[in-house]
Amino acid sequence: MPTPRRAALHRVPMRHPGDTAAIEHLITTGRLDPSGIVAILGKTEGNGCVNDFTRAYAVQSLTLMLARHMGVEAAARVALVMSGGTEGGLSPHFLVFTVEAGDAPNPAGALAIGTGFTRDFAPEEIGRPAQAEAVATAVHQAMEAAAITEVHYVQVKCPLLTTERIATAGASVATEDTYASMGLSRGASALGVALALGEVDAVLPEDIGRNWKRFSAVASASAGVELERCEVIVLGNSTAWSGDLAIAHAVMQDAIDLPAVHRAMRLAGLPAEDGQLAPAAAERLVAVLAKAEPSSTGRIRGQRHIMWDDSDINATRHARALVGGVIAGAVGRTDIFVSGGAEHQGPDGGGPVAVIARRALPV
Amino acid sequence: MPTPRRAALHRVPMRHPGDTAAIEHLITTGRLDPSGIVAILGKTEGNGCVNDFTRAYAVQSLTLMLARHMGVEAAARVALVMSGGTEGGLSPHFLVFTVEAGDAPNPAGALAIGTGFTRDFAPEEIGRPAQAEAVATAVHQAMEAAAITEVHYVQVKCPLLTTERIATAGASVATEDTYASMGLSRGASALGVALALGEVDAVLPEDIGRNWKRFSAVASASAGVELERCEVIVLGNSTAWSGDLAIAHAVMQDAIDLPAVHRAMRLAGLPAEDGQLAPAAAERLVAVLAKAEPSSTGRIRGQRHIMWDDSDINATRHARALVGGVIAGAVGRTDIFVSGGAEHQGPDGGGPVAVIARRALPV
Amino acid sequence: MPTPRRAALHRVPMRHPGDTAAIEHLITTGRLDPSGIVAILGKTEGNGCVNDFTRAYAVQSLTLMLARHMGVEAAARVALVMSGGTEGGLSPHFLVFTVEAGDAPNPAGALAIGTGFTRDFAPEEIGRPAQAEAVATAVHQAMEAAAITEVHYVQVKCPLLTTERIATAGASVATEDTYASMGLSRGASALGVALALGEVDAVLPEDIGRNWKRFSAVASASAGVELERCEVIVLGNSTAWSGDLAIAHAVMQDAIDLPAVHRAMRLAGLPAEDGQLAPAAAERLVAVLAKAEPSSTGRIRGQRHIMWDDSDINATRHARALVGGVIAGAVGRTDIFVSGGAEHQGPDGGGPVAVIARRALPV
Amino acid sequence: MPTPRRAALHRVPMRHPGDTAAIEHLITTGRLDPSGIVAILGKTEGNGCVNDFTRAYAVQSLTLMLARHMGVEAAARVALVMSGGTEGGLSPHFLVFTVEAGDAPNPAGALAIGTGFTRDFAPEEIGRPAQAEAVATAVHQAMEAAAITEVHYVQVKCPLLTTERIATAGASVATEDTYASMGLSRGASALGVALALGEVDAVLPEDIGRNWKRFSAVASASAGVELERCEVIVLGNSTAWSGDLAIAHAVMQDAIDLPAVHRAMRLAGLPAEDGQLAPAAAERLVAVLAKAEPSSTGRIRGQRHIMWDDSDINATRHARALVGGVIAGAVGRTDIFVSGGAEHQGPDGGGPVAVIARRALPV
Repeated sequence: MPTPRRAALHRVPMRHPGDTAAIEHLITTGRLDPSGIVAILGKTEGNGCVNDFTRAYAVQSLTLMLARHMGVEAAARVALVMSGGTEGGLSPHFLVFTVEAGDAPNPAGALAIGTGFTRDFAPEEIGRPAQAEAVATAVHQAMEAAAITEVHYVQVKCPLLTTERIATAGASVATEDTYASMGLSRGASALGVALALGEVDAVLPEDIGRNWKRFSAVASASAGVELERCEVIVLGNSTAWSGDLAIAHAVMQDAIDLPAVHRAMRLAGLPAEDGQLAPAAAERLVAVLAKAEPSSTGRIRGQRHIMWDDSDINATRHARALVGGVIAGAVGRTDIFVSGGAEHQGPDGGGPVAVIARRALPV
Repeated sequence: MPTPRRAALHRVPMRHPGDTAAIEHLITTGRLDPSGIVAILGKTEGNGCVNDFTRAYAVQSLTLMLARHMGVEAAARVALVMSGGTEGGLSPHFLVFTVEAGDAPNPAGALAIGTGFTRDFAPEEIGRPAQAEAVATAVHQAMEAAAITEVHYVQVKCPLLTTERIATAGASVATEDTYASMGLSRGASALGVALALGEVDAVLPEDIGRNWKRFSAVASASAGVELERCEVIVLGNSTAWSGDLAIAHAVMQDAIDLPAVHRAMRLAGLPAEDGQLAPAAAERLVAVLAKAEPSSTGRIRGQRHIMWDDSDINATRHARALVGGVIAGAVGRTDIFVSGGAEHQGPDGGGPVAVIARRALPV
Repeated sequence: MPTPRRAALHRVPMRHPGDTAAIEHLITTGRLDPSGIVAILGKTEGNGCVNDFTRAYAVQSLTLMLARHMGVEAAARVALVMSGGTEGGLSPHFLVFTVEAGDAPNPAGALAIGTGFTRDFAPEEIGRPAQAEAVATAVHQAMEAAAITEVHYVQVKCPLLTTERIATAGASVATEDTYASMGLSRGASALGVALALGEVDAVLPEDIGRNWKRFSAVASASAGVELERCEVIVLGNSTAWSGDLAIAHAVMQDAIDLPAVHRAMRLAGLPAEDGQLAPAAAERLVAVLAKAEPSSTGRIRGQRHIMWDDSDINATRHARALVGGVIAGAVGRTDIFVSGGAEHQGPDGGGPVAVIARRALPV
Repeated sequence: MPTPRRAALHRVPMRHPGDTAAIEHLITTGRLDPSGIVAILGKTEGNGCVNDFTRAYAVQSLTLMLARHMGVEAAARVALVMSGGTEGGLSPHFLVFTVEAGDAPNPAGALAIGTGFTRDFAPEEIGRPAQAEAVATAVHQAMEAAAITEVHYVQVKCPLLTTERIATAGASVATEDTYASMGLSRGASALGVALALGEVDAVLPEDIGRNWKRFSAVASASAGVELERCEVIVLGNSTAWSGDLAIAHAVMQDAIDLPAVHRAMRLAGLPAEDGQLAPAAAERLVAVLAKAEPSSTGRIRGQRHIMWDDSDINATRHARALVGGVIAGAVGRTDIFVSGGAEHQGPDGGGPVAVIARRALPV
């Protein structure tokens, strides 16, 4: 019988997108074994849109720092998923996921992590079924490798089209609007997750970016200019893993669905008082990951929102600020991973929310 | 004994800042007697900063509409307080406050409204004690006129300095930074309310915009380019008024103080489920009014926020989106009056939140 | 023989979008006979995009002011064309066009003005050939009414799609992206001008917003949320008109085509020194009208521009600032009417520039 | 007699702030000897304000690339000066300055480059005369080392105050606002250049950041957190250097002073046609360096600009777009180094403009 694995998670702040000092401090003080790092998610303070270079800057900084401690080759195997945009009160931070040798498997299930990668895409594949299908394959590979049967969150980092890339395309691209390409790429990625998990049967060209009834309840995709393939991180619980962390999720039906956040907290064993995570349980909250997007209808519960009509602030920036506020109210902290652009990730205007927490000690 | 008055409140959407059709529809269908209108608060979709002309546009549109139904002179007596900025999910809307003849006074206390105005200020008075003292006088006049002893919310609309106005000043102005002038004007106004209510003993020049320990727990000030005086609306409960509306308030200690919102809801008789206003009580919620601002420390509960360092989106826009999200999560709707720039309005980074609700029928 | 008409033009500043005082001052001091006003163009300081309410606010303010001096009905016949966006150094201003009785016709040709209007469009017509065809008809009507045979500038103000309007459409709309709708509406309008002037033979659905080789060399269209029809103002020279004003134009081949601006100046009789309008001739410059847009290639003379990839500032805002700089350098003043969104108005990345000047006195 | 030196300059595009491939291509194809690189100026596409991380990202990327070709120590000696902001049509690019062995000195004078450094400053010296005086000394040292007698451009990279540095100060600091310290440090640096060149007699504490009549006609300063001293790059002509490059400058009196740009071009031997650099001479233009800032008066030649009152776009962004347009019109290209923040660098609202060109071959 193989040694069970144990997943751990460090949440640390960054002072700017190139600041990896908090992670390095964990390494140099012996609290984080760099060889166990499988993925780092980062919430960086750019605009989260086309010209957000904070993601690439953070990736370059992390790669340099990891290479110093792990060597260049090992560092290159760590999945780095930067999501730009800390609007409202969101606080820039890194989530460092590690896998190490555990002791006894947790029969109640423990947090398990699997990762996968697609090939590089041609510009003309982005935002189309070919991308979704490659993502589905990568999700399956990640699940198998990690023996996950109960999936609660799938993070996909995907490419986008820039004016430069469009010019090199071998065939017509899904859109020539670089900003729109981010949505199509996220949407195709999410439908790839849905395909992998049986939430949809197939991904048709006309679904992507149009048919919002088709979505995954656990997908979270973010697009960045710094990569040409998709990177997949699957989070779930597994009885083959050890440790006291567990993950749960719920689906926000709209951007102000605070009860869904409460449901996810409750499923993760976290109690609330006066609407907010009870102070006594606050230290057991390890991470919150959620998606945000403006409803395509221009309304939230019947009231008009102005996200689509605001030509000064991108709609995704409004949405992250809003959902960040709803969730920060629920959990009482702002270093939560809310990423924008939730096309096919939860229902129109809503999105998945996942909570990772330490199980309460039996009294 | 004089006839008791009754305050009523209509909350209606606007499709754009010049759209007063929803109010006019109430008038023409007989549900709103224009002669009773004392104040209209509007949440318009501009940037809420120096070049936000949606406020002036809404004021001009309201004035024209009211003049058609009330005559020019009566229309000019209605206090019009437009607050720009519907970031995140906030929905542009008007709150129309009316006072009409009531029946028996409500011994439990009923919503009461008083209004007051200062003189026009010289540019060099803005953001200085002279402004605060004039506001305090106006608050006292409004309270006396309405027999309010329990004050829960004081809205002050105040002027700002523009490059043009600075050029006409007769003496040195408090600041030559037009954007900064909005904060000083709001701050002086709020300290004026605090002075009126005994929350501070005096307003010193060095307090304004600096000493954040001095604040009012019920003030809400917003600055606009369209006026040169301060307009004051005092909301409270009075046993001399009739009706089933009541107002309550709490103070958010920081931007994510969801428990304070719950407290205000509870004091107004509104129950919550899973963190959100219970659906069965939803129709009894009449209005929510709150202030939002970025903490001056750059942190929320120890975590860094980026509001002050973002040179693309003004800090107040981030703050409104955030607090709008926290409150919308609590009340389950987005047409809430969250205004930015909470200098001396509640503690640093926090602010007052007031809830107006219909009392539950006794079972 | 009918009395010849004479066109005149007043250029006045505005302190904010609701400030019509400079025009009113001309009226009350007898320098402007309101009954002669046929059109007012305004460059207002909004973002020039979807949520630019400075245009509607200016229109409302102008309408009120004109009604005071002309009566409501006459005021309603004045064409009001507000173009939002004074990025870079552009200065907010109004151009007031008047037509009055002249003396002898100018055999060299004098500035002549014609106006026309289309019907209101259904949402599904916007950005489609039906819009172009209606514009062409309106251009012909305006030319005939003003006896213009030499057309130098055609201003079209056209509607856009908002989330609200899309919801009321009776059929599928050209785009559901409100911002994109502005470009399609401007493009359809410009192709309508091209159709009227024989610059194209027909307007096909696939041309609009795609085939940038088809354009008008004299069209200038701007879209605004405040109207549902197109308003057309044709400027040209006519030997049937009197006066010493004349108009000339050139086509900027790209955004930095300063030589084209010089060509237009020269054709209008204005000399330059060291690249800029000669001081001695400066007072003869009456107005400059131009279009600006980012090249669709992402490049200007081979060098990359970042207008399309900047998610913080809209591409049209960059373009207006840039072209405003080029032209302000040429003419030595900043109250020039540079409007954004030059789809099918001049070649890709370029646009028409028209100069109105007083003819030099013979020496 | 020592071997004369020759200065050379490569201007290359960047596709994003981390893209140093064009420089690397010059190195690997043998056209650029990395050992000769003394300085790299970069115009990156961030917002040029507080949260512009494109500068640090470009510096990190350049440092990595240079270290690969020169070794870490030599790379550290290259002065890297990144200026954020490519608004309007400005094109992101690098200017790579090299010094190598030349042949015969050019008796007409050739471009010469000198560098100098001050000591580290105490926090209380920053933004004060002590800083200016040290900069003046460094300018003199750089001039002597490079035998420059005719100075046309002085780039100063200067420190700023951080919260940490303020805490270690031995006396009160010039400002406790860290952002304001950037402007004071730039201003003190520019006045230091003015002092070195005899443009001012002395630098008084009350001049810095206040008395805009005192300025240098050739200074360009930028502040960065990564250094505690000032680094100075002096560009001028010297008869001791060889090569056919020469530099000239003029001072724009305001943002639309196109004649000043023409003057600088003419002094650098570049002819114009129709206001723009003549196509036949275009290849001789090597670089343009200029400063841009909004006039503090809110006006340009009497007309209002909206730069200070626009709360959506920072004033420096407007100014760069505007001045970029004026200069691009003059030189017919957009990869020009226009940087913002021109305190005491040219007159209020204006700034220096320097042109580097290859001398025309004698016919």
